[in-house]
Amino acid sequence: MEAIRWQGEFLQLLDQTKLPLVEEYIDCWDPFIVADAIKKLQVRGAPAIGAAAAFGVVLAGLNVHSEDEAELNEHVRNAIELLGKTRPTAVNLFWALKRMGDSFAATAGQGVQRRQQALLNEAQAIFEEDQAMNRRMGEYGLELIPDGAGILTHCNAGALATTGYGTALGVIRAAHEAGKSISVFADETRPLLQGARLTAWELMQDNIPVTLITDSMAAYVMKRGLVDLVIVGADRITANGDVANKIGTYGVALAAKAHGIPFYVAAPVSTFDLSLTSGEQIPIEERDAEEVRSLGGVWTAPKEVQVFNPAFDVTPAELITALITDRGVIRPPFGESIRACFER
Amino acid sequence: MEAIRWQGEFLQLLDQTKLPLVEEYIDCWDPFIVADAIKKLQVRGAPAIGAAAAFGVVLAGLNVHSEDEAELNEHVRNAIELLGKTRPTAVNLFWALKRMGDSFAATAGQGVQRRQQALLNEAQAIFEEDQAMNRRMGEYGLELIPDGAGILTHCNAGALATTGYGTALGVIRAAHEAGKSISVFADETRPLLQGARLTAWELMQDNIPVTLITDSMAAYVMKRGLVDLVIVGADRITANGDVANKIGTYGVALAAKAHGIPFYVAAPVSTFDLSLTSGEQIPIEERDAEEVRSLGGVWTAPKEVQVFNPAFDVTPAELITALITDRGVIRPPFGESIRACFER
Repeated sequence: MEAIRWQGEFLQLLDQTKLPLVEEYIDCWDPFIVADAIKKLQVRGAPAIGAAAAFGVVLAGLNVHSEDEAELNEHVRNAIELLGKTRPTAVNLFWALKRMGDSFAATAGQGVQRRQQALLNEAQAIFEEDQAMNRRMGEYGLELIPDGAGILTHCNAGALATTGYGTALGVIRAAHEAGKSISVFADETRPLLQGARLTAWELMQDNIPVTLITDSMAAYVMKRGLVDLVIVGADRITANGDVANKIGTYGVALAAKAHGIPFYVAAPVSTFDLSLTSGEQIPIEERDAEEVRSLGGVWTAPKEVQVFNPAFDVTPAELITALITDRGVIRPPFGESIRACFER
Repeated sequence: MEAIRWQGEFLQLLDQTKLPLVEEYIDCWDPFIVADAIKKLQVRGAPAIGAAAAFGVVLAGLNVHSEDEAELNEHVRNAIELLGKTRPTAVNLFWALKRMGDSFAATAGQGVQRRQQALLNEAQAIFEEDQAMNRRMGEYGLELIPDGAGILTHCNAGALATTGYGTALGVIRAAHEAGKSISVFADETRPLLQGARLTAWELMQDNIPVTLITDSMAAYVMKRGLVDLVIVGADRITANGDVANKIGTYGVALAAKAHGIPFYVAAPVSTFDLSLTSGEQIPIEERDAEEVRSLGGVWTAPKEVQVFNPAFDVTPAELITALITDRGVIRPPFGESIRACFER
């Protein structure tokens, strides 16, 4: 169950739109297929998008078969531009593309083959660092998960959303591996059901007890006393600690606050955007109305009904108990603690 | 678009599980078919369930073709028992069955035919009173809807949930008919999508502007400033003003509170259960896991995943701005104001 596989000459992306019923990989030989897969959410999850895009840039480089560095430059620059236009909210995409661009610029004049290899090295570094960061988040987050905890999560911040192990699900996995008895409520996460299709599936494969609920049930299971903490991933975290994440996260955070339940966000350094001072500045992607009007080819509403379909929302820092990062657990006041963490 | 039609000798129920794509009526010639339709949510909505059950009792009586009152008694009592076991939460069902039982008892000894007619008269009274109550709620609720209001509603509390006009949607209709410029956000209401399939469809037919959102978007549209008030229906209201309604209502109420948005509940006298002192005592129906695992025959999750599927939740009185009833708008403190309203 790997979302992203580098196969020596080409990239394989697990088609997450078909899970859990069909496990099928898409072979990507150029950045256009990668960009398309990102747009269609065949690969999704902020860290996974970043890593996939990095390999998309590698493919652009490898498709240059001459010794002409100018041609290589053009291919790589075009790919970075193309991939940067796929999805606006998750900052990991831009973080990874900037790393690829910077690393590429640093090899100017070294010849096509060495520069192709340098691109591959950088993408593989992004890939491996992401896995390592997830493991570290798991270790840091462990202390926040009491034995016997009921944990609610929203969307999928698991192995499938990353290069492996997961952010929010990484912490849950670490607690499970440490022998803690935990159980998870997974919000199904309409419209695209990442919770039902991906989170439930991942947890079942690891034999971690999971109960699927609709998004509308989250507040009620909290009221029933079944939830001890909430943990979610993130698509972008601003300098003040505001968190953009899958639509519905904000409502879950409000419900957690009302019930005095801790609300944690697990995200690696690649998800932080310190150029923005608050979540108000994060661009929120709006997706096609058909995602809300239908499901799996079945109409769920009048075909002509007007739809509003934001893919993300912003949870303000004041609703967040702590941020679990690969550099440690960060607590309020977030403005200061994030700055301290990144100045280390 | 009538959910319930009495056709002289039999009952027709609009099959709401097939809407909006197919408009098809179920012909009911006995209480078993009515009970089945209630269980399957072919007829749903607290006031509509009550009225349908009342006609189910009528059918039980009409199916006695002898002059034997003992046989009539047995048929009617069995039907009341059967219909009372269909769904546990909406009190309108028990209210209507009690009215039918009491009225039936009052005609003891008058002969089969007169008693059959008396049952029909009572059911028709329930039906007509419900329509009249909805209109009155619309009139009373009108003052609460500012011109230009953005209104969020959850599930379907419309003509389809009643004998016509609707409770929450009745107030919205009244505001529209009064010339107020309003627009509605309809939560799709997973798992059975009454908002997407029924509310959006009803409002479109009346040319009332409606935007469909997933349940997880409600808090975000509030934060964006698009919602001026929330109005929902109810399945049972206890003496202290706690409200059982479709799962998800509680989360919407928490979000409304957090944003300072008024939260209104529209319900007729038949929805009040003054025998219960608080919402904790309301039985909450749990329905089949398949409703959450699949949609329209399409699997939306691993087939074996554990599911929790409560059909209702309870919104505590302190989150409610006012109750819009057929006897006027009731405001906090609800314990006192509900008592005053019902002692009139």
